[in-house]
Amino acid sequence: MSVRHFVGDTAVANTPDHDRGLAYGDGLFETMRAHEGDVHWWPAHWRRLERGARALAFDLPDQACVRREVASLLDDANGVLKLVVTRGPGGRGYAPPASPTPHWILSLHDAPVVAPAGGLTLRWCDTRLALQPALAGLKHCNRLEQVLARAEWRDPETHEGLMRSTEGDVVSATSANLFVLYDDRWTTPRVDRCGIAGVCREWAMGALGAREARLAVTEVEAADAVFLCNAARGILPVARLGARSWRPHPQVAQLRRRLAAEHPAFATEVA
Amino acid sequence: MSVRHFVGDTAVANTPDHDRGLAYGDGLFETMRAHEGDVHWWPAHWRRLERGARALAFDLPDQACVRREVASLLDDANGVLKLVVTRGPGGRGYAPPASPTPHWILSLHDAPVVAPAGGLTLRWCDTRLALQPALAGLKHCNRLEQVLARAEWRDPETHEGLMRSTEGDVVSATSANLFVLYDDRWTTPRVDRCGIAGVCREWAMGALGAREARLAVTEVEAADAVFLCNAARGILPVARLGARSWRPHPQVAQLRRRLAAEHPAFATEVA
Repeated sequence: MSVRHFVGDTAVANTPDHDRGLAYGDGLFETMRAHEGDVHWWPAHWRRLERGARALAFDLPDQACVRREVASLLDDANGVLKLVVTRGPGGRGYAPPASPTPHWILSLHDAPVVAPAGGLTLRWCDTRLALQPALAGLKHCNRLEQVLARAEWRDPETHEGLMRSTEGDVVSATSANLFVLYDDRWTTPRVDRCGIAGVCREWAMGALGAREARLAVTEVEAADAVFLCNAARGILPVARLGARSWRPHPQVAQLRRRLAAEHPAFATEVA
Repeated sequence: MSVRHFVGDTAVANTPDHDRGLAYGDGLFETMRAHEGDVHWWPAHWRRLERGARALAFDLPDQACVRREVASLLDDANGVLKLVVTRGPGGRGYAPPASPTPHWILSLHDAPVVAPAGGLTLRWCDTRLALQPALAGLKHCNRLEQVLARAEWRDPETHEGLMRSTEGDVVSATSANLFVLYDDRWTTPRVDRCGIAGVCREWAMGALGAREARLAVTEVEAADAVFLCNAARGILPVARLGARSWRPHPQVAQLRRRLAAEHPAFATEVA
């Protein structure tokens, strides 16, 4: 795995001491699919970073500088590109520095394993997502809830876990958004109180004309079809959730083909 | 500021790449008062780390090894010692490594400024604390709520801000616990749904026979006396909260003297 660090527009060898990303999770990240050196969804990833940076009130590094370094790191590769941007070095204490210089990290990882042809097997997680509207939707670095949820199982036959909020509504998988076909309409959970507004979720909402709603456990279990999605893995059909199982659904297969047609990284995964 | 890094029992020069503390805030920390090379409350700090490590399910480094390095770093100094322990390096994705090796960081900082003789001036923060019982009480590294709250003011005449939960009950200051004298009894907010179980809070509860309760804003404002406390600064009398003001209270002065008698770092701050 290749890793490069920068503070502002300067390359550095390592994470600086007293980095607020490490001290407080005071940062943001994006996980992006790279294909032949290009990040097809770059504009959407950068827009989400900008929303996060506004909410946390720090300046992002210069986008042109980041893109140059991305191109240099990728060098025509396929895989998953991760970008972390923290508020940068700071003193002890929560008060943010008056003029922080962001620390950003680029790393290139292998492409994810292709999802099983029959669809994913899911479980319900016990760990809940707390309601925090001030941070909801953002891909910030405070992710202990997801860590605890993902640590609930090690069985490799279980591919993902669904998480509920502390109020009981279904929000997402640990690292993917959720769509369900219910009442003849595609629905994805709202992410205005917790959860992450995924880049692939945004694409799928547009492609399906999906609506946002609060979803109960019973509504997910009664759905006619279910899929997960994220920007690294695209559209992931779901085959099983506990005792419930679903057969492959033509609308999900069609959506995968549409994604493959629009985003070259996902073309190889669709027959 | 002196900083030392270790992975397991090995000294390293920097934060390792892919550290889960930076990626997800997947770690714990302690902020301790050091006096002439000694950390008086070490056992209580280590106990809280152990509680946190159990909740996050990773092993702490060997305590004897950490204490040796603490002694070497402190070298008879006074000040504030910070210890961060993360789950250590890991791959991409939330799933914790099966056998993580913790990364820990020791840093020595100046002793805090002595609190103003008349008492602190507080404000109410707008940022709320989300309810997450699975993480409540722990001093973990997911601290964006405190960062956002502390960023609400820059006026140096305001010393701290009080935070409420998303349900409206008063929990703590951004970096200190809260005690109020109300109905002739000392009360401190419960930290079972959010907030941090402070080491100085534990000491003060014992010293005062204080009870834990959910506190409304009106109960704080109607209190006969209020103080904040943390392990770096001890007991901090409160003089003002918005329009409300309090005169110095003999019970708070007495508690400060008692702390000074028991914990040598705080002796210099009491007349």
